[in-house]
Amino acid sequence: MSSKTSADVIIGGKVYTLSGYESEAYLQKVALYINNKMNEMEALEGYSRFPADMKATLMELNIADDYFKAKEQAEKLEEDLEARNKEVHGLKHELVSFQLKLESLEKSLEEREKENKELLLAQAKLEAEVDDLLLAEPAKKK
Amino acid sequence: MSSKTSADVIIGGKVYTLSGYESEAYLQKVALYINNKMNEMEALEGYSRFPADMKATLMELNIADDYFKAKEQAEKLEEDLEARNKEVHGLKHELVSFQLKLESLEKSLEEREKENKELLLAQAKLEAEVDDLLLAEPAKKK
Repeated sequence: MSSKTSADVIIGGKVYTLSGYESEAYLQKVALYINNKMNEMEALEGYSRFPADMKATLMELNIADDYFKAKEQAEKLEEDLEARNKEVHGLKHELVSFQLKLESLEKSLEEREKENKELLLAQAKLEAEVDDLLLAEPAKKK
Repeated sequence: MSSKTSADVIIGGKVYTLSGYESEAYLQKVALYINNKMNEMEALEGYSRFPADMKATLMELNIADDYFKAKEQAEKLEEDLEARNKEVHGLKHELVSFQLKLESLEKSLEEREKENKELLLAQAKLEAEVDDLLLAEPAKKK
């Protein structure tokens, strides 16, 4: 467990001492976000005249909306990642399959080349034999 | 652009009429989330005795924290997705490369088998020729 930290942040003009497990930088980031959100809201027509509890609720709705949008995005990305993982899995299987096929073909080719060499040798021997037989038979010369 | 909708939601015991471009279902989901968050906070030691503005700020901090955590998760997922996309890209290239190699090997194997057949035919002819010559030369019979 990380150690507990404490940081002073200013939110809506008031100082708050927050303690928790987050870094000071993170707490300042969140405070900045809230202050910016407040400024955005204050700039909206009529907002400054709302009662405090309504302002608070509108702030909460607004921040919660950011949260749900980020959550939706994360969920969509998780689905995309899941699909991509499946694709990788399938492609790896195809590669293994191709690899095996390649090895099998290479083996067949090797065997065929070996057979060909042997056939060529045998052919040379037979041709020599034919030549010998022809030499011994002058009458049947081709 | 989707049409503007309007929905009544209850937040913190008060009714609010929200209008926007989100569905009623979404607005109710957000309201439920906020109400649940309020109940969680009220259950915390001392919270109920805080002044209203402090309660509001604590609610905002809490919801903003949920937002930033969801945002971090989305960013992490984006990185993972990016890496996985690169992996897919690389694997597809490998597959194409294997495919070409396979086709080349299949072609070589076909040629070798064709040569093989021709050599076997030639061999048969030569053997027949040798047999003929041997028949004509009884003295040299093997």
